[in-house]
Amino acid sequence: MPGHIVSSYDADLENLRRSISEMGGIAEKMVTEATDALVRRDATLAQAVIAADKRLDTLQHEIEERSVLLIAKRQPLAIDLRETISAIRVSGDLERIGDLAKNVAKRVVAISDQAVGQKIILGVQHMSDLAEGQLKDVLDAYGSRDVKAAQDVWERDGEIDALYNSLFRELLTYMMEDPRNISFCTHLLFCAKNVERIGDHTTNIAETIQYLATGETPTGDRPKNDASNYATVTPGQG
Amino acid sequence: MPGHIVSSYDADLENLRRSISEMGGIAEKMVTEATDALVRRDATLAQAVIAADKRLDTLQHEIEERSVLLIAKRQPLAIDLRETISAIRVSGDLERIGDLAKNVAKRVVAISDQAVGQKIILGVQHMSDLAEGQLKDVLDAYGSRDVKAAQDVWERDGEIDALYNSLFRELLTYMMEDPRNISFCTHLLFCAKNVERIGDHTTNIAETIQYLATGETPTGDRPKNDASNYATVTPGQG
Repeated sequence: MPGHIVSSYDADLENLRRSISEMGGIAEKMVTEATDALVRRDATLAQAVIAADKRLDTLQHEIEERSVLLIAKRQPLAIDLRETISAIRVSGDLERIGDLAKNVAKRVVAISDQAVGQKIILGVQHMSDLAEGQLKDVLDAYGSRDVKAAQDVWERDGEIDALYNSLFRELLTYMMEDPRNISFCTHLLFCAKNVERIGDHTTNIAETIQYLATGETPTGDRPKNDASNYATVTPGQG
Repeated sequence: MPGHIVSSYDADLENLRRSISEMGGIAEKMVTEATDALVRRDATLAQAVIAADKRLDTLQHEIEERSVLLIAKRQPLAIDLRETISAIRVSGDLERIGDLAKNVAKRVVAISDQAVGQKIILGVQHMSDLAEGQLKDVLDAYGSRDVKAAQDVWERDGEIDALYNSLFRELLTYMMEDPRNISFCTHLLFCAKNVERIGDHTTNIAETIQYLATGETPTGDRPKNDASNYATVTPGQG
Protein backbone atom coordinates (compact mmCIF):
# COMPACT_ATOMS: atom_id res chain seq x y z
CA MET A 1 0.00 0.00 0.00
CA PRO A 2 2.22 2.87 -1.21
CA GLY A 3 1.50 6.34 0.13
CA HIS A 4 2.12 5.74 3.81
CA ILE A 5 4.55 8.18 5.38
CA VAL A 6 6.06 5.44 7.51
CA SER A 7 7.40 2.92 5.02
CA SER A 8 8.14 0.26 7.64
CA TYR A 9 4.38 0.23 8.16
CA ASP A 10 3.88 -0.92 4.57
CA ALA A 11 6.51 -3.55 5.22
CA ASP A 12 4.60 -4.73 8.31
CA LEU A 13 1.37 -5.07 6.33
CA GLU A 14 3.18 -6.80 3.48
CA ASN A 15 4.69 -9.29 5.94
CA LEU A 16 1.24 -10.05 7.35
CA ARG A 17 -0.04 -10.71 3.82
CA ARG A 18 2.90 -13.00 3.10
CA SER A 19 2.31 -15.01 6.28
CA ILE A 20 -1.41 -15.39 5.49
CA SER A 21 -0.46 -16.56 2.03
CA GLU A 22 1.95 -19.14 3.50
CA MET A 23 -0.79 -20.33 5.86
CA GLY A 24 -3.21 -20.61 2.94
CA GLY A 25 -0.76 -22.73 0.97
CA ILE A 26 -0.20 -25.11 3.89
CA ALA A 27 -3.93 -25.41 4.68
CA GLU A 28 -4.76 -26.16 1.02
CA LYS A 29 -2.05 -28.82 0.84
CA MET A 30 -3.24 -30.40 4.11
CA VAL A 31 -6.84 -30.64 2.87
CA THR A 32 -5.75 -32.18 -0.46
CA GLU A 33 -3.35 -34.64 1.15
CA ALA A 34 -5.78 -35.65 3.90
CA THR A 35 -8.29 -36.60 1.19
CA ASP A 36 -5.63 -38.42 -0.86
CA ALA A 37 -4.57 -40.31 2.25
CA LEU A 38 -8.18 -41.29 2.89
CA VAL A 39 -8.84 -42.47 -0.66
CA ARG A 40 -5.63 -44.52 -0.76
CA ARG A 41 -5.81 -45.49 2.95
CA ASP A 42 -2.24 -44.17 3.17
CA ALA A 43 -1.23 -43.89 6.84
CA THR A 44 2.22 -42.46 5.99
CA LEU A 45 0.76 -39.53 4.06
CA ALA A 46 -1.77 -39.06 6.88
CA GLN A 47 1.10 -38.77 9.37
CA ALA A 48 2.67 -36.07 7.17
CA VAL A 49 -0.59 -34.10 7.27
CA ILE A 50 -0.70 -34.41 11.06
CA ALA A 51 2.90 -33.16 11.29
CA ALA A 52 2.23 -30.17 8.98
CA ASP A 53 -0.32 -28.72 11.39
CA LYS A 54 2.37 -27.51 13.83
CA ARG A 55 3.65 -24.90 11.36
CA LEU A 56 0.13 -23.60 10.83
CA ASP A 57 -0.35 -23.13 14.58
CA THR A 58 2.97 -21.29 14.85
CA LEU A 59 2.10 -18.99 11.94
CA GLN A 60 -1.32 -18.17 13.36
CA HIS A 61 0.24 -17.33 16.70
CA GLU A 62 2.77 -15.06 15.00
CA ILE A 63 0.19 -13.31 12.83
CA GLU A 64 -2.02 -12.61 15.83
CA GLU A 65 0.88 -11.22 17.85
CA ARG A 66 2.19 -9.10 14.99
CA SER A 67 -1.29 -7.76 14.24
CA VAL A 68 -1.84 -6.73 17.84
CA LEU A 69 1.58 -5.13 17.94
CA LEU A 70 0.83 -3.33 14.67
CA ILE A 71 -2.43 -1.92 16.05
CA ALA A 72 -0.69 -0.85 19.24
CA LYS A 73 2.35 0.74 17.59
CA ARG A 74 0.89 2.20 14.40
CA GLN A 75 -2.69 2.86 15.46
CA PRO A 76 -4.03 2.18 11.97
CA LEU A 77 -7.34 3.65 10.87
CA ALA A 78 -10.06 2.64 8.41
CA ILE A 79 -8.76 0.33 5.66
CA ASP A 80 -5.46 -0.41 7.40
CA LEU A 81 -7.23 -1.29 10.61
CA ARG A 82 -9.56 -3.58 8.68
CA GLU A 83 -6.55 -5.15 6.97
CA THR A 84 -5.08 -6.00 10.35
CA ILE A 85 -8.34 -7.27 11.86
CA SER A 86 -8.90 -9.34 8.71
CA ALA A 87 -5.46 -10.91 9.03
CA ILE A 88 -6.37 -12.04 12.57
CA ARG A 89 -9.70 -13.46 11.40
CA VAL A 90 -8.40 -15.24 8.28
CA SER A 91 -5.45 -16.76 10.14
CA GLY A 92 -7.91 -18.06 12.75
CA ASP A 93 -10.02 -19.73 10.05
CA LEU A 94 -6.99 -21.22 8.30
CA GLU A 95 -5.73 -22.62 11.59
CA ARG A 96 -9.12 -24.27 12.15
CA ILE A 97 -9.11 -25.66 8.58
CA GLY A 98 -5.72 -27.21 9.34
CA ASP A 99 -7.10 -28.74 12.55
CA LEU A 100 -10.00 -30.25 10.63
CA ALA A 101 -7.69 -31.69 7.94
CA LYS A 102 -5.47 -33.08 10.71
CA ASN A 103 -8.52 -34.70 12.27
CA VAL A 104 -9.38 -36.38 8.95
CA ALA A 105 -5.78 -37.61 8.75
CA LYS A 106 -5.99 -39.09 12.28
CA ARG A 107 -9.07 -41.02 11.25
CA VAL A 108 -7.24 -42.31 8.15
CA VAL A 109 -4.65 -43.79 10.52
CA ALA A 110 -7.47 -45.40 12.54
CA ILE A 111 -9.11 -47.11 9.55
CA SER A 112 -5.98 -47.78 7.47
CA ASP A 113 -6.01 -51.52 8.23
CA GLN A 114 -9.75 -52.01 7.71
CA ALA A 115 -11.68 -53.15 4.67
CA VAL A 116 -13.61 -50.05 3.63
CA GLY A 117 -16.19 -49.69 0.85
CA GLN A 118 -14.47 -47.62 -1.85
CA LYS A 119 -17.76 -46.22 -3.15
CA ILE A 120 -18.53 -44.55 0.15
CA ILE A 121 -15.02 -43.13 0.34
CA LEU A 122 -15.49 -41.63 -3.11
CA GLY A 123 -18.50 -39.77 -1.72
CA VAL A 124 -16.26 -38.14 0.90
CA GLN A 125 -13.68 -37.44 -1.80
CA HIS A 126 -16.25 -35.72 -4.00
CA MET A 127 -17.27 -33.49 -1.10
CA SER A 128 -13.66 -32.80 -0.26
CA ASP A 129 -12.81 -31.87 -3.88
CA LEU A 130 -15.57 -29.28 -3.73
CA ALA A 131 -14.27 -27.91 -0.41
CA GLU A 132 -10.71 -27.76 -1.80
CA GLY A 133 -11.90 -25.83 -4.86
CA GLN A 134 -13.79 -23.37 -2.64
CA LEU A 135 -10.76 -22.90 -0.40
CA LYS A 136 -8.50 -22.25 -3.39
CA ASP A 137 -10.98 -19.72 -4.83
CA VAL A 138 -11.39 -17.86 -1.54
CA LEU A 139 -7.63 -17.63 -1.01
CA ASP A 140 -7.23 -16.24 -4.54
CA ALA A 141 -10.04 -13.77 -3.79
CA TYR A 142 -8.29 -12.73 -0.57
CA GLY A 143 -5.00 -12.24 -2.39
CA SER A 144 -6.57 -10.06 -5.09
CA ARG A 145 -9.16 -8.43 -2.77
CA ASP A 146 -11.86 -9.63 -5.17
CA VAL A 147 -15.22 -9.12 -3.43
CA LYS A 148 -17.18 -10.54 -6.36
CA ALA A 149 -15.20 -13.80 -6.32
CA ALA A 150 -15.62 -13.97 -2.53
CA GLN A 151 -19.37 -13.54 -2.93
CA ASP A 152 -19.40 -16.47 -5.40
CA VAL A 153 -17.66 -18.70 -2.84
CA TRP A 154 -20.08 -17.57 -0.16
CA GLU A 155 -23.07 -18.53 -2.30
CA ARG A 156 -21.70 -21.98 -3.13
CA ASP A 157 -21.35 -23.24 0.47
CA GLY A 158 -24.82 -24.78 0.19
CA GLU A 159 -23.51 -27.33 -2.36
CA ILE A 160 -21.10 -28.84 0.17
CA ASP A 161 -23.86 -28.98 2.78
CA ALA A 162 -26.21 -30.76 0.37
CA LEU A 163 -23.54 -33.36 -0.42
CA TYR A 164 -22.87 -33.86 3.27
CA ASN A 165 -26.54 -34.38 3.88
CA SER A 166 -26.90 -37.15 1.31
CA LEU A 167 -23.62 -38.75 2.40
CA PHE A 168 -24.84 -38.77 6.01
CA ARG A 169 -27.91 -40.82 5.07
CA GLU A 170 -25.86 -43.11 2.86
CA LEU A 171 -23.40 -43.84 5.67
CA LEU A 172 -26.19 -44.58 8.13
CA THR A 173 -27.78 -47.00 5.67
CA TYR A 174 -24.44 -48.70 5.11
CA MET A 175 -23.99 -49.16 8.86
CA MET A 176 -27.42 -50.75 9.18
CA GLU A 177 -26.68 -53.24 6.42
CA ASP A 178 -23.75 -54.76 8.26
CA PRO A 179 -22.46 -54.05 11.79
CA ARG A 180 -18.92 -54.61 10.54
CA ASN A 181 -19.31 -51.31 8.66
CA ILE A 182 -20.11 -49.33 11.81
CA SER A 183 -16.60 -48.59 13.04
CA PHE A 184 -15.16 -47.16 9.82
CA CYS A 185 -18.44 -45.54 8.77
CA THR A 186 -18.45 -43.62 12.06
CA HIS A 187 -14.98 -42.34 11.24
CA LEU A 188 -16.14 -41.44 7.73
CA LEU A 189 -19.14 -39.60 9.20
CA PHE A 190 -16.75 -37.45 11.20
CA CYS A 191 -14.48 -37.01 8.17
CA ALA A 192 -17.46 -35.78 6.15
CA LYS A 193 -18.51 -33.49 9.01
CA ASN A 194 -14.96 -32.09 9.13
CA VAL A 195 -15.02 -31.37 5.41
CA GLU A 196 -18.40 -29.68 5.81
CA ARG A 197 -16.87 -27.47 8.51
CA ILE A 198 -13.88 -26.70 6.29
CA GLY A 199 -16.54 -25.32 3.95
CA ASP A 200 -17.93 -23.18 6.80
CA HIS A 201 -14.52 -21.69 7.57
CA THR A 202 -14.01 -21.01 3.86
CA THR A 203 -17.31 -19.13 3.93
CA ASN A 204 -16.06 -17.18 6.96
CA ILE A 205 -13.04 -16.08 4.92
CA ALA A 206 -15.37 -14.98 2.10
CA GLU A 207 -17.24 -12.84 4.65
CA THR A 208 -13.98 -11.36 5.93
CA ILE A 209 -13.07 -10.32 2.37
CA GLN A 210 -16.36 -8.46 2.14
CA TYR A 211 -15.68 -6.83 5.53
CA LEU A 212 -12.18 -5.89 4.38
CA ALA A 213 -13.53 -4.19 1.26
CA THR A 214 -16.63 -2.54 2.67
CA GLY A 215 -16.33 -2.49 6.48
CA GLU A 216 -19.53 -4.53 6.67
CA THR A 217 -19.86 -8.24 7.47
CA PRO A 218 -22.79 -9.97 5.74
CA THR A 219 -25.57 -10.45 8.29
CA GLY A 220 -28.07 -12.39 6.19
CA ASP A 221 -28.44 -16.15 6.54
CA ARG A 222 -25.96 -18.29 4.69
CA PRO A 223 -27.28 -20.48 1.90
CA LYS A 224 -27.44 -23.60 4.15
CA ASN A 225 -28.59 -26.97 2.88
CA ASP A 226 -27.58 -29.02 5.90
CA ALA A 227 -30.58 -30.95 7.13
CA SER A 228 -28.46 -33.81 8.53
CA ASN A 229 -28.88 -32.54 12.11
CA TYR A 230 -32.51 -33.52 11.78
CA ALA A 231 -32.01 -36.64 9.64
CA THR A 232 -32.86 -40.11 10.85
CA VAL A 233 -32.72 -43.38 8.94
CA THR A 234 -34.66 -46.51 9.91
CA PRO A 235 -33.23 -50.01 9.25
CA GLY A 236 -34.82 -51.62 6.24
CA GLN A 237 -35.67 -48.26 4.63
CA GLY A 238 -32.22 -47.84 3.11
CA MET B 1 -10.59 0.99 35.12
CA PRO B 2 -10.42 4.38 36.90
CA GLY B 3 -7.52 6.65 36.08
CA HIS B 4 -8.21 7.19 32.38
CA ILE B 5 -8.32 10.82 31.37
CA VAL B 6 -11.16 10.14 28.92
CA SER B 7 -13.97 8.81 31.10
CA SER B 8 -16.17 7.76 28.17
CA TYR B 9 -13.37 5.32 27.39
CA ASP B 10 -13.97 3.59 30.72
CA ALA B 11 -17.64 3.49 29.85
CA ASP B 12 -16.83 1.84 26.50
CA LEU B 13 -14.75 -0.85 28.21
CA GLU B 14 -17.41 -1.36 30.88
CA ASN B 15 -20.04 -1.80 28.15
CA LEU B 16 -17.88 -4.41 26.45
CA ARG B 17 -17.58 -6.30 29.74
CA ARG B 18 -21.32 -6.15 30.28
CA SER B 19 -22.03 -7.54 26.80
CA ILE B 20 -19.56 -10.39 27.31
CA SER B 21 -21.24 -11.14 30.61
CA GLU B 22 -24.65 -11.23 28.89
CA MET B 23 -23.25 -13.56 26.20
CA GLY B 24 -21.79 -15.81 28.91
CA GLY B 25 -25.15 -16.04 30.67
CA ILE B 26 -26.96 -16.96 27.45
CA ALA B 27 -24.33 -19.53 26.42
CA GLU B 28 -24.41 -21.20 29.86
CA LYS B 29 -28.21 -21.38 29.78
CA MET B 30 -28.16 -22.84 26.24
CA VAL B 31 -25.71 -25.58 27.23
CA THR B 32 -27.73 -26.49 30.35
CA GLU B 33 -31.06 -26.48 28.52
CA ALA B 34 -29.76 -28.40 25.51
CA THR B 35 -28.66 -31.17 27.90
CA ASP B 36 -31.96 -31.07 29.80
CA ALA B 37 -33.83 -31.28 26.50
CA LEU B 38 -31.72 -34.29 25.51
CA VAL B 39 -32.22 -36.13 28.79
CA ARG B 40 -35.99 -35.53 28.78
CA ARG B 41 -36.30 -35.81 24.97
CA ASP B 42 -38.07 -32.42 25.14
CA ALA B 43 -38.43 -30.99 21.62
CA THR B 44 -40.11 -27.79 22.87
CA LEU B 45 -37.20 -26.90 25.14
CA ALA B 46 -34.82 -27.79 22.28
CA GLN B 47 -36.63 -25.31 20.02
CA ALA B 48 -36.17 -22.62 22.69
CA VAL B 49 -32.42 -23.31 22.71
CA ILE B 50 -32.31 -23.05 18.91
CA ALA B 51 -34.16 -19.70 19.08
CA ALA B 52 -31.82 -18.30 21.78
CA ASP B 53 -28.80 -18.55 19.47
CA LYS B 54 -29.88 -15.50 17.42
CA ARG B 55 -29.29 -13.11 20.34
CA LEU B 56 -25.82 -14.59 20.86
CA ASP B 57 -24.94 -13.99 17.20
CA THR B 58 -26.16 -10.39 17.40
CA LEU B 59 -24.18 -9.72 20.58
CA GLN B 60 -21.00 -11.17 19.10
CA HIS B 61 -21.40 -9.01 16.04
CA GLU B 62 -21.91 -5.92 18.21
CA ILE B 63 -18.94 -6.69 20.46
CA GLU B 64 -16.66 -7.17 17.48
CA GLU B 65 -17.79 -3.92 15.86
CA ARG B 66 -17.53 -1.94 19.08
CA SER B 67 -14.08 -3.39 19.83
CA VAL B 68 -12.79 -2.46 16.39
CA LEU B 69 -14.27 1.02 16.74
CA LEU B 70 -12.70 1.33 20.19
CA ILE B 71 -9.27 0.39 18.87
CA ALA B 72 -9.67 2.82 15.99
CA LYS B 73 -10.98 5.77 18.03
CA ARG B 74 -9.12 5.38 21.31
CA GLN B 75 -5.96 3.64 20.16
CA PRO B 76 -5.59 1.75 23.43
CA LEU B 77 -2.21 0.49 24.55
CA ALA B 78 -0.98 -2.42 26.68
CA ILE B 79 -3.63 -3.69 29.11
CA ASP B 80 -6.51 -1.77 27.46
CA LEU B 81 -5.57 -3.13 24.06
CA ARG B 82 -5.45 -6.64 25.51
CA GLU B 83 -8.83 -6.05 27.13
CA THR B 84 -10.30 -5.19 23.72
CA ILE B 85 -8.61 -8.05 21.87
CA SER B 86 -9.75 -10.42 24.63
CA ALA B 87 -13.34 -9.24 24.26
CA ILE B 88 -13.19 -10.14 20.55
CA ARG B 89 -11.72 -13.57 21.30
CA VAL B 90 -14.04 -14.48 24.17
CA SER B 91 -17.15 -13.36 22.27
CA GLY B 92 -16.01 -15.56 19.36
CA ASP B 93 -15.69 -18.58 21.64
CA LEU B 94 -19.05 -17.93 23.32
CA GLU B 95 -20.72 -17.63 19.93
CA ARG B 96 -19.24 -21.01 18.92
CA ILE B 97 -20.38 -22.56 22.23
CA GLY B 98 -23.90 -21.32 21.44
CA ASP B 99 -23.69 -22.88 17.95
CA LEU B 100 -22.63 -26.20 19.44
CA ALA B 101 -25.46 -26.13 22.01
CA LYS B 102 -27.88 -25.27 19.18
CA ASN B 103 -26.57 -28.24 17.23
CA VAL B 104 -27.23 -30.56 20.20
CA ALA B 105 -30.76 -29.10 20.41
CA LYS B 106 -31.38 -29.80 16.71
CA ARG B 107 -30.40 -33.42 17.25
CA VAL B 108 -32.80 -33.63 20.22
CA VAL B 109 -35.58 -32.64 17.81
CA ALA B 110 -34.41 -35.37 15.40
CA ILE B 111 -34.48 -38.17 18.00
CA SER B 112 -37.40 -36.92 20.12
CA ASP B 113 -39.80 -39.57 18.83
CA GLN B 114 -37.34 -42.48 19.03
CA ALA B 115 -36.84 -45.05 21.77
CA VAL B 116 -33.40 -44.23 23.12
CA GLY B 117 -31.41 -46.08 25.78
CA GLN B 118 -31.50 -43.84 28.85
CA LYS B 119 -28.18 -45.16 30.18
CA ILE B 120 -26.28 -43.96 27.14
CA ILE B 121 -27.98 -40.55 27.34
CA LEU B 122 -26.85 -40.28 30.97
CA GLY B 123 -23.29 -40.69 29.69
CA VAL B 124 -23.72 -37.62 27.50
CA GLN B 125 -25.35 -35.81 30.41
CA HIS B 126 -22.43 -36.57 32.70
CA MET B 127 -20.01 -35.17 30.12
CA SER B 128 -22.21 -32.16 29.60
CA ASP B 129 -22.45 -31.45 33.35
CA LEU B 130 -18.67 -31.37 33.45
CA ALA B 131 -18.53 -28.98 30.46
CA GLU B 132 -21.17 -26.71 32.05
CA GLY B 133 -19.19 -26.57 35.30
CA GLN B 134 -16.03 -25.69 33.39
CA LEU B 135 -17.85 -22.98 31.42
CA LYS B 136 -19.30 -21.46 34.60
CA ASP B 137 -15.86 -21.47 36.27
CA VAL B 138 -14.12 -19.88 33.28
CA LEU B 139 -16.75 -17.13 33.01
CA ASP B 140 -16.34 -16.38 36.74
CA ALA B 141 -12.57 -16.31 36.21
CA TYR B 142 -12.99 -13.90 33.29
CA GLY B 143 -15.25 -11.65 35.37
CA SER B 144 -12.79 -11.50 38.26
CA ARG B 145 -9.64 -11.65 36.09
CA ASP B 146 -8.56 -14.69 38.12
CA VAL B 147 -5.60 -16.28 36.30
CA LYS B 148 -5.25 -19.06 38.86
CA ALA B 149 -8.88 -20.15 38.42
CA ALA B 150 -8.45 -19.96 34.62
CA GLN B 151 -5.38 -22.19 34.87
CA ASP B 152 -7.45 -24.74 36.86
CA VAL B 153 -10.07 -24.83 34.09
CA TRP B 154 -7.34 -25.21 31.48
CA GLU B 155 -5.87 -28.21 33.29
CA ARG B 156 -9.23 -29.96 33.65
CA ASP B 157 -10.10 -30.11 29.91
CA GLY B 158 -8.54 -33.59 29.74
CA GLU B 159 -11.35 -34.98 31.94
CA ILE B 160 -14.01 -34.11 29.36
CA ASP B 161 -11.87 -35.63 26.59
CA ALA B 162 -11.43 -38.86 28.57
CA LEU B 163 -15.20 -39.13 29.10
CA TYR B 164 -15.81 -38.48 25.40
CA ASN B 165 -13.37 -41.21 24.52
CA SER B 166 -15.08 -43.88 26.62
CA LEU B 167 -18.53 -42.72 25.47
CA PHE B 168 -17.43 -42.99 21.84
CA ARG B 169 -16.54 -46.66 22.30
CA GLU B 170 -19.71 -47.33 24.25
CA LEU B 171 -21.87 -45.81 21.50
CA LEU B 172 -20.13 -47.85 18.80
CA THR B 173 -20.68 -51.05 20.77
CA TYR B 174 -24.34 -50.17 21.26
CA MET B 175 -24.76 -49.65 17.51
CA MET B 176 -23.22 -53.02 16.76
CA GLU B 177 -25.58 -54.78 19.15
CA ASP B 178 -28.68 -53.68 17.28
CA PRO B 179 -28.98 -51.78 13.96
CA ARG B 180 -32.06 -50.01 15.32
CA ASN B 181 -29.70 -48.15 17.65
CA ILE B 182 -27.61 -46.73 14.81
CA SER B 183 -29.65 -43.68 13.90
CA PHE B 184 -29.99 -42.16 17.37
CA CYS B 185 -26.52 -43.32 18.46
CA THR B 186 -25.06 -41.41 15.52
CA HIS B 187 -26.85 -38.28 16.72
CA LEU B 188 -25.59 -38.93 20.26
CA LEU B 189 -22.05 -39.34 18.89
CA PHE B 190 -22.27 -35.87 17.39
CA CYS B 191 -23.87 -34.51 20.58
CA ALA B 192 -20.96 -35.89 22.59
CA LYS B 193 -18.49 -34.45 20.07
CA ASN B 194 -20.22 -31.05 20.36
CA VAL B 195 -19.91 -31.14 24.15
CA GLU B 196 -16.25 -32.08 23.82
CA ARG B 197 -15.78 -29.02 21.58
CA ILE B 198 -17.63 -26.82 24.06
CA GLY B 199 -14.87 -27.91 26.43
CA ASP B 200 -12.25 -26.84 23.87
CA HIS B 201 -13.75 -23.37 23.52
CA THR B 202 -13.92 -23.10 27.32
CA THR B 203 -10.21 -23.90 27.36
CA ASN B 204 -9.66 -21.16 24.74
CA ILE B 205 -11.32 -18.68 27.10
CA ALA B 206 -9.03 -19.84 29.92
CA GLU B 207 -6.06 -19.11 27.61
CA THR B 208 -7.44 -15.67 26.78
CA ILE B 209 -7.67 -14.84 30.51
CA GLN B 210 -3.99 -15.71 30.82
CA TYR B 211 -3.22 -13.53 27.77
CA LEU B 212 -5.28 -10.69 29.24
CA ALA B 213 -3.34 -10.82 32.51
CA THR B 214 0.15 -11.44 31.20
CA GLY B 215 0.20 -10.63 27.47
CA GLU B 216 1.26 -14.23 26.81
CA THR B 217 -0.88 -17.04 25.41
CA PRO B 218 0.07 -20.52 26.68
CA THR B 219 1.98 -22.31 23.94
CA GLY B 220 2.42 -25.72 25.61
CA ASP B 221 0.27 -28.70 24.65
CA ARG B 222 -3.12 -28.89 26.26
CA PRO B 223 -3.74 -31.80 28.62
CA LYS B 224 -5.56 -33.85 25.92
CA ASN B 225 -7.00 -37.29 26.56
CA ASP B 226 -8.93 -37.67 23.33
CA ALA B 227 -7.89 -40.88 21.64
CA SER B 228 -11.26 -41.35 19.95
CA ASN B 229 -9.90 -40.17 16.58
CA TYR B 230 -7.87 -43.33 16.57
CA ALA B 231 -10.42 -45.61 18.21
CA THR B 232 -12.00 -48.55 16.44
CA VAL B 233 -14.39 -51.14 17.83
CA THR B 234 -14.95 -54.57 16.28
CA PRO B 235 -18.35 -56.29 16.47
CA GLY B 236 -18.39 -59.01 19.12
CA GLN B 237 -15.63 -57.33 21.16
CA GLY B 238 -18.05 -55.00 22.96
